[in-house]
Amino acid sequence: MAREIERKFLLKNQDWKPLAFKQTHFAQGYLNDISDHKAKSSVRVRIEGEQANMNIKSLEIGLSRDEYEYSIPLEDAQKMLNTLTVGPVIEKIRYLVKHDSHTWEIDEFLGDNAGLVVAEVEMTSEADQVPIPDWAGREVTEVVRYYNISLSKYPFKEWNDDEKK
Amino acid sequence: MAREIERKFLLKNQDWKPLAFKQTHFAQGYLNDISDHKAKSSVRVRIEGEQANMNIKSLEIGLSRDEYEYSIPLEDAQKMLNTLTVGPVIEKIRYLVKHDSHTWEIDEFLGDNAGLVVAEVEMTSEADQVPIPDWAGREVTEVVRYYNISLSKYPFKEWNDDEKK
Repeated sequence: MAREIERKFLLKNQDWKPLAFKQTHFAQGYLNDISDHKAKSSVRVRIEGEQANMNIKSLEIGLSRDEYEYSIPLEDAQKMLNTLTVGPVIEKIRYLVKHDSHTWEIDEFLGDNAGLVVAEVEMTSEADQVPIPDWAGREVTEVVRYYNISLSKYPFKEWNDDEKK
Repeated sequence: MAREIERKFLLKNQDWKPLAFKQTHFAQGYLNDISDHKAKSSVRVRIEGEQANMNIKSLEIGLSRDEYEYSIPLEDAQKMLNTLTVGPVIEKIRYLVKHDSHTWEIDEFLGDNAGLVVAEVEMTSEADQVPIPDWAGREVTEVVRYYNISLSKYPFKEWNDDEKK
């Protein structure tokens, strides 16, 4: 099993933006209430650029989780995210920025998380020494409220000033 | 808007069975809890013969309900119906039987509704005089517990003897 090792940072300024070589619009939401104890799966609609898909994943605890994914028309996904989701839609623009040999993913959130910008870099191992760019601010790798799953329950717009620092 | 006018009957005996010119296996279930007040859509998986689809329908009250339907692999549908449904799977074999100029659909239910067999005939108008075959028994057109939506909440196996008559 592959383990993701990532570091996550806030941004000091907008200096990274002219360096982006790609940007993609992301939006996703759930059609079912995944916090309901009856739910046996999550039913997620996701838009990634011009592509859209529907993803069904079993919620059982265990080694393997069944997952099904189907491409669907972009217009269908847009309409479903606008009208049928339970809970908030997470929406963001993901920018890719190269710094030395590492590609950084910078997520500029929209909607209920507008104002939040987070940079992530993946390491090849825990020993990997990632050169930190000048535009990277405080590291928040360990701060749970920045996780995607947290943002869907406790979005940035509800954070107090201390939490936003 | 087209309005379905159907009559529904129980069966007196098995005399209809040799007359069937087609039979198709149906199975369907929901991935979300459609009785939950948070649900904005129903997410249904259906198998019809060798075809399978996923159907998402908005639950809003009103003139138009949005509906999305996607073909999915039969094996995916079988696995989802076995492991991910909320509430019972409705399963039946539908037989088609011609009588005079009308085609009758006879549903032989399986699973929690095993033992229930219902014949339906569609009329072209309320004035349409449908010739009733000898094998058709008591008419149950107006009896709510025979509706599909009722069977998924109160299946045949839970009916008492009076209800089964």
